[in-house]
Amino acid sequence: MPDFGTSGDSMSLRVAERISGIQPFYVMELLRRAKELEADGKDIIHMEIGEPDFATPQTILKAALAHTATGDVKYTPAAGLTELRQKIAAFYRRRYGVNIPEQRVFVTPGATGAFLLALGASLNPGEEVLMADPCYPCNSNFVQLYDGKTRTIPVDADSHYQLTTKLIERHWSAETKGVLIASPSNPTGTLIPRAELQKTIEATRRLGGCFYSDEIYHGLVYGEKAATALEFSDDVFVINSFSKYFGMTGWRIGWLIVPELFIEAAEKLSQNIFISTSSDAQHAALAAFDESTLAELEDRRREFEKRRDFLYDALVRLGFDIPIKPAGAFYIYARCAKFTDDSFQFALDLLENEGVAVTPGKDFGLHEAHHALRFAYTTSLDRLAEAVRRLERFLDAR
Amino acid sequence: MPDFGTSGDSMSLRVAERISGIQPFYVMELLRRAKELEADGKDIIHMEIGEPDFATPQTILKAALAHTATGDVKYTPAAGLTELRQKIAAFYRRRYGVNIPEQRVFVTPGATGAFLLALGASLNPGEEVLMADPCYPCNSNFVQLYDGKTRTIPVDADSHYQLTTKLIERHWSAETKGVLIASPSNPTGTLIPRAELQKTIEATRRLGGCFYSDEIYHGLVYGEKAATALEFSDDVFVINSFSKYFGMTGWRIGWLIVPELFIEAAEKLSQNIFISTSSDAQHAALAAFDESTLAELEDRRREFEKRRDFLYDALVRLGFDIPIKPAGAFYIYARCAKFTDDSFQFALDLLENEGVAVTPGKDFGLHEAHHALRFAYTTSLDRLAEAVRRLERFLDAR
Ligand SMILES: Cc1ncc(COP(=O)(O)O)c(C=O)c1O
Ligand SMILES: Cc1ncc(COP(=O)(O)O)c(C=O)c1O
Repeated sequence: MPDFGTSGDSMSLRVAERISGIQPFYVMELLRRAKELEADGKDIIHMEIGEPDFATPQTILKAALAHTATGDVKYTPAAGLTELRQKIAAFYRRRYGVNIPEQRVFVTPGATGAFLLALGASLNPGEEVLMADPCYPCNSNFVQLYDGKTRTIPVDADSHYQLTTKLIERHWSAETKGVLIASPSNPTGTLIPRAELQKTIEATRRLGGCFYSDEIYHGLVYGEKAATALEFSDDVFVINSFSKYFGMTGWRIGWLIVPELFIEAAEKLSQNIFISTSSDAQHAALAAFDESTLAELEDRRREFEKRRDFLYDALVRLGFDIPIKPAGAFYIYARCAKFTDDSFQFALDLLENEGVAVTPGKDFGLHEAHHALRFAYTTSLDRLAEAVRRLERFLDAR
Repeated sequence: MPDFGTSGDSMSLRVAERISGIQPFYVMELLRRAKELEADGKDIIHMEIGEPDFATPQTILKAALAHTATGDVKYTPAAGLTELRQKIAAFYRRRYGVNIPEQRVFVTPGATGAFLLALGASLNPGEEVLMADPCYPCNSNFVQLYDGKTRTIPVDADSHYQLTTKLIERHWSAETKGVLIASPSNPTGTLIPRAELQKTIEATRRLGGCFYSDEIYHGLVYGEKAATALEFSDDVFVINSFSKYFGMTGWRIGWLIVPELFIEAAEKLSQNIFISTSSDAQHAALAAFDESTLAELEDRRREFEKRRDFLYDALVRLGFDIPIKPAGAFYIYARCAKFTDDSFQFALDLLENEGVAVTPGKDFGLHEAHHALRFAYTTSLDRLAEAVRRLERFLDAR
């Protein structure tokens, strides 16, 4: 090998500037340590994981297996199988009473792909997106990918840990392109009340902005039904996924609904950045809206609700501060100021001493993050009960 | 619904500027027409399609089915299953004699995902990438996605339709970030000779640039073995995929090999823009390097070679000008100046009159595109023979 090929010459290579703006996920450090502990034979209770512990429903698996078995696993149209786009549109009619022409529906590799597509089609470099702090950590990184800017707005229990019309109007600037919300929220599990959602969309549209609504935890709600942004405007981007409610994380399939004006842009962009979404995943998802699948998912939702109730009560009893009982998703965002001013260290110690893994607040933002932990109830009631016992012992020992 | 939700208010929404720089694929128009004709009962021979007509190999299907059946289809590590990264690294040792630590291997949603990752990790807005004209049309659109610039360099038969050291040096400017090549090339099927590849990499690295080597058609070569850029430098980005050689287009799985300096950037970026690649596709791909799979793929390669020989001879006999017999991929890029000055119209007429679909040159660039057509031999010898008969009749009738 010629000697220019040695690492010495990599000095002229430089990582793109956008990368330095992407924070690593702190939970990865915990995950690595958890794996080591498991390799040493220690029993770890995973409450840091943002995916359902349930298997993909049988009906969905059957549809996938039938397709895979044909061996005919080819590119599909970039926007997705027509039949699947129609089923998604029909789901909006049935569940929310809104009429979405299937041309506005784009099947994507997860909500992740939906974000790539929505922001790629709408955001210019230097433009700013408003989002809540705390929020899903990838949000600002999607914006960063397109060399946009993120303005995170601290939110507290008094606004359900969500943006409000007032906050949006106060933080709007000449550079603001739009607003990104998720309801129910990751990490807080809280919803934007229906009337407030309508007002924030109205305010954003009045200001000429794009509204990006991440509805990936719709379906996983335990009280009030979540409203889709599409009930209030056709000119919004709705991001959703088969990952969470439908139990299909590893399949990498979700969808995006775009305003009519963006159909052509989304079509062009998806042809280039995806070619298409996994053919197996799409054929699997064709069974996702079947009555029998939805019935099974309804059972799971009730199971998640039981877990939420159990865990919420237990954490409150142990002295965690949870001002709002979360109404959706599978997370409890608990304040732990009573126990520590460094929730990351707390999480590391809890893992090390008791084998319970949770996610530190600082993965979701800066605002009061050192006083916060996210507990995912993506494990069985038995395991949650064991985690609570360990947590109690851990707190007693401090 | 409140009336701000009507389409009137979408006037304040604006598509991102990068979208106007993304050309639609002209072949889509042909595809649409082909579908209509098929719906009318007409028999269409598809030679416009860039995917193998073979099913995914049985061994790969079996591995996928076994995984799917467990129902345990979850997120994987962002960079891919460790076992798969190891197998890919081992494949480089076996096939090319190069040692790539598995940490430099990232499993991605297709070569498409590999491009998103490579350019996202290295390209800043405004920076320029050099590529051949003609080339794979998505290339410049990936660059456009990150608000970079593309400089296409006209290439002809005398350089195997590939960039050369001379061309790279002549077109290099202060804004140039790097060079993107594909060998074998889509659309021309031609290779960069081994010695020239080494020199272009050396020149690019001497100029301080990034070298992006798209090796998706490796394996599908009919003479000289294709060299990987990694034989000449560790500081290159190698893009590859299970789509073409391994017959897995619809699974959406490929890989990227990055210079060591980019491992952390690629790790952070892939966590955000993919979360992970399809779990099923990864488990399927674990069987891709099995001896029995490779033996089956070798049979297919020989079948493609027969088709190439047949089609090349036939097209030359009909009067198409093909200065270099393509040495790889499954395309023949034929000059049709003898028949038309508008290859797009020619393709439309050929489809309309004889039901043969081919891709117009202008999908691959501007240089002499109106005199070029791409024929894909992704259909059986029988069908190719029928296509040639129809083509002959079509030319006779003009
Ligand atoms: C709020 C939120 N949005 C989007 C995603 C992305 O999910 P996926 O790409 O699997 O659909 C997640 C995953 O954790 C999430 O929590
Ligand atoms: C030269 C070239 N590179 C990359 C790709 C992308 O393929 P995939 O994303 O399926 O791996 C293609 C597909 O046609 C191609 O021809």
